[in-house]
Amino acid sequence: MAANADGISNAAMENLIGRVEKRPISTIVFIVAMQKEAQPLIERLRLVKVVNSPFPKEVAWILFKGMYKNLNINIVCPGKDSALGVDSVCTVPASLVTYASIQALRPDLIINAGTAGGFKAKGASICDVYIVSSSAFHDRRIPVPVLDLYGVGMKKAFPTPNLIKELNLKVGRLSTGDSMDMSPHDKESITANDATVKDMEGAAVAYVADIFKVPTILIKGVTDIVDGNRPTSEEFLENLAAVTAKLDESITKVIDFISGKCLSDL
Amino acid sequence: MAANADGISNAAMENLIGRVEKRPISTIVFIVAMQKEAQPLIERLRLVKVVNSPFPKEVAWILFKGMYKNLNINIVCPGKDSALGVDSVCTVPASLVTYASIQALRPDLIINAGTAGGFKAKGASICDVYIVSSSAFHDRRIPVPVLDLYGVGMKKAFPTPNLIKELNLKVGRLSTGDSMDMSPHDKESITANDATVKDMEGAAVAYVADIFKVPTILIKGVTDIVDGNRPTSEEFLENLAAVTAKLDESITKVIDFISGKCLSDL
Repeated sequence: MAANADGISNAAMENLIGRVEKRPISTIVFIVAMQKEAQPLIERLRLVKVVNSPFPKEVAWILFKGMYKNLNINIVCPGKDSALGVDSVCTVPASLVTYASIQALRPDLIINAGTAGGFKAKGASICDVYIVSSSAFHDRRIPVPVLDLYGVGMKKAFPTPNLIKELNLKVGRLSTGDSMDMSPHDKESITANDATVKDMEGAAVAYVADIFKVPTILIKGVTDIVDGNRPTSEEFLENLAAVTAKLDESITKVIDFISGKCLSDL
Repeated sequence: MAANADGISNAAMENLIGRVEKRPISTIVFIVAMQKEAQPLIERLRLVKVVNSPFPKEVAWILFKGMYKNLNINIVCPGKDSALGVDSVCTVPASLVTYASIQALRPDLIINAGTAGGFKAKGASICDVYIVSSSAFHDRRIPVPVLDLYGVGMKKAFPTPNLIKELNLKVGRLSTGDSMDMSPHDKESITANDATVKDMEGAAVAYVADIFKVPTILIKGVTDIVDGNRPTSEEFLENLAAVTAKLDESITKVIDFISGKCLSDL
């Protein structure tokens, strides 16, 4: 009989997974790159900043916590860079907080929520909120067989057909890179990734969550049109507040939908 | 009297740091992206693969351990990607293993060793081994005030003037990005970073080590000339074995030099 390293047979493991999926979702961890993006949700769900967080004392990572409709809600932000005082955006801090949150909080579900650029050629408009169907990197070009695929790092998101139908959400592929702008090389990879939205963290969160097989949903609100005429940073700053409010509204609907449900009901 | 969060006065903390720096270095963690790069050193130092590593059971990270000249030597590799079977290169896995190694192994010193591309315009040749003076990212372009500096993420390496002098090592700045090739945008940033060598992990290791104030040395062996005529991936694969042997030789000299010394002696 096939058995894994823990001596559990594959059949027993599948049965276990099946039972877990049929248990109502209890603990959710939101990974949010910028605290500003998380603030409306923190206030709406009356989450409290945890003073003695489970994270090492040296990190600036912030944990907000609270119960909402029988769900144990956690929002984790990478916090401010200690030297420069700006939000610790990009894939490295996102992967670190995802890893540490999985270890410390053992979530049933991870939700990476935040802002993104959208491609109008793929149907995106400012203030659209997307559920991501798959994520990939567009700035990890490694022209060596197999390593090229590793660099792209495509991961399918946890399927949520009922959630998408009930909330009438737009669905699209996400491409992640550490730059806010888009170089011609990035553009080529984003096109190959067939992306509708572009962010700076999603694929890193999905990569770490996939290692630990934690189901992950990515929700992205469109702050700027990448294939439009205006500079991304300008549009981003202009629309941040409005998109964050829209995103907060959608996330609340998502949480209301999740409450009382099992993973297999999503 | 100024006191930090632990209630230790700044003067007492400085005294403590001073004492730690005057204690002989005991535990070293090497972060090495590809196991092939680490293999000669593993064999030379007779390190043993740790079966029950302190890392979560879900990760492929590999820990090799052993005593050498009174030093507790650890080599940590991110291991193979579970889906694709290739080495987990790039900044995200490097940052994760650095974080987890600091938490689990509490090193006095981190050494990120590996291969790199070199710029002949800055004096680099194939098989050169460089000690890195500072590291920065070249593929995190964020054109928003202060976030631009955060994206570059320049970190000075731990100063090792005596080590450099004694071993007669070349010194240069490192620029890190997740791609093996170099786009025109990358080139512009690498030039701005004044880099002599270019790799795919160093700045991420330095970022995480800096959070925990763990002194870090980066040693890079040149497998390919970035501003030369040949494709990087071709040159890289051709020179990997020779450069790894050269790197192993230099690292052994570095370890021999470190043995019995304090951080402040480096």
